[in-house]
Amino acid sequence: MIKMYGFWRSAASFRVRIALNLKGLAYEEEMIDLDGGEQNAPDYVAKNAQASVPTVFFDDQPPMTQSLAILEYLDERHPVPRLLPDDAESRARVRSIALMFAADHHPLIVPRVRRYLTETLKVSDEARTDWIRYWFREGLRQAQERLSAEPETGRFCHGDQPTIADLCLVSQVVGARGFQVDILDLPTVSRITASCLDIDAFARAHPHNQPSAPASH
Amino acid sequence: MIKMYGFWRSAASFRVRIALNLKGLAYEEEMIDLDGGEQNAPDYVAKNAQASVPTVFFDDQPPMTQSLAILEYLDERHPVPRLLPDDAESRARVRSIALMFAADHHPLIVPRVRRYLTETLKVSDEARTDWIRYWFREGLRQAQERLSAEPETGRFCHGDQPTIADLCLVSQVVGARGFQVDILDLPTVSRITASCLDIDAFARAHPHNQPSAPASH
Repeated sequence: MIKMYGFWRSAASFRVRIALNLKGLAYEEEMIDLDGGEQNAPDYVAKNAQASVPTVFFDDQPPMTQSLAILEYLDERHPVPRLLPDDAESRARVRSIALMFAADHHPLIVPRVRRYLTETLKVSDEARTDWIRYWFREGLRQAQERLSAEPETGRFCHGDQPTIADLCLVSQVVGARGFQVDILDLPTVSRITASCLDIDAFARAHPHNQPSAPASH
Repeated sequence: MIKMYGFWRSAASFRVRIALNLKGLAYEEEMIDLDGGEQNAPDYVAKNAQASVPTVFFDDQPPMTQSLAILEYLDERHPVPRLLPDDAESRARVRSIALMFAADHHPLIVPRVRRYLTETLKVSDEARTDWIRYWFREGLRQAQERLSAEPETGRFCHGDQPTIADLCLVSQVVGARGFQVDILDLPTVSRITASCLDIDAFARAHPHNQPSAPASH
């Protein structure tokens, strides 16, 4: 039994849902309302000291956290289809693209950071939205530079099969769209995102297709 | 030949130096002065679209970026000593601890973010230092929660051998010390850091022991 605590809008939850779908693994998702602060409830913090989502339980094992660690785990335990290439050099490239998003740009726009901007730095709503848009745009712009220049780019970020790099790219693009970030001038990013969202496993994992997503996003 | 572009103070460069030392791999490091903006020079951006450090060249291969991707690559190609445990569940735990730092807290205090706080949000020097201290402290506090509660913690973050989790922990603690962050009440974090810095491969990689580090830090 796979049980995941996630949130409809969370990019990290989105990534894990895509991987579970691609690998054909059934799971149950319980929503932790990040807007309502449910991640800070003592019960939840006991499962995840970071008070973040996702937290995934595989059978009776201790909770697993951090989306990239969970994706690597899934790929090791359920290797069909593979989400990382076979050779070490290609894996390094795929992980590096994934980390551009998961480790550099996404952490800047999560709820705890937005809260600090508003509550501690007393930043205006407008300046906060500019911050969010800036970091989304900057990460996707850098990805466009790499993806358009590097010969390994194919239908997806690395060749013609989806890898964890694509899961991270798509979750970032979908988040950026929620903030009306303009990416029309990033054709490789847009093309790969479209290729991904054509796949049912990606589409079913999309934030808007989660039961707890509000009717108007 | 391994050539690394790094910076003496950079936590991500520190992590990679430790791994290279532990594995006994000779490398040459060229310093990119992040304070002087050398990372934004067109020559360097052509190597690393993120304008960040480290960038590592292994022989004639394309540049590798993102410290965690580089650590995984080193562990695959040079598996002695291993920096990840053998079983998938343990690897997931180690990666999750590494990502707490590399993917959630360290990205909040890097030069590009500090610059946005000062130049765009017009935050005072004091408020900027508070921001940096807050995120250092928060990440290390969360790590203390996990490391003290989870039975897998040993002399190091996972058992009695250093893993990539320790490389990330130590680089974060050393960064926090540079900002006088109080971690006296985080005994497990302090104990593991001391165990690591007792090892020559860690000590030699320490920011203060790099040739380009200023005499007064």
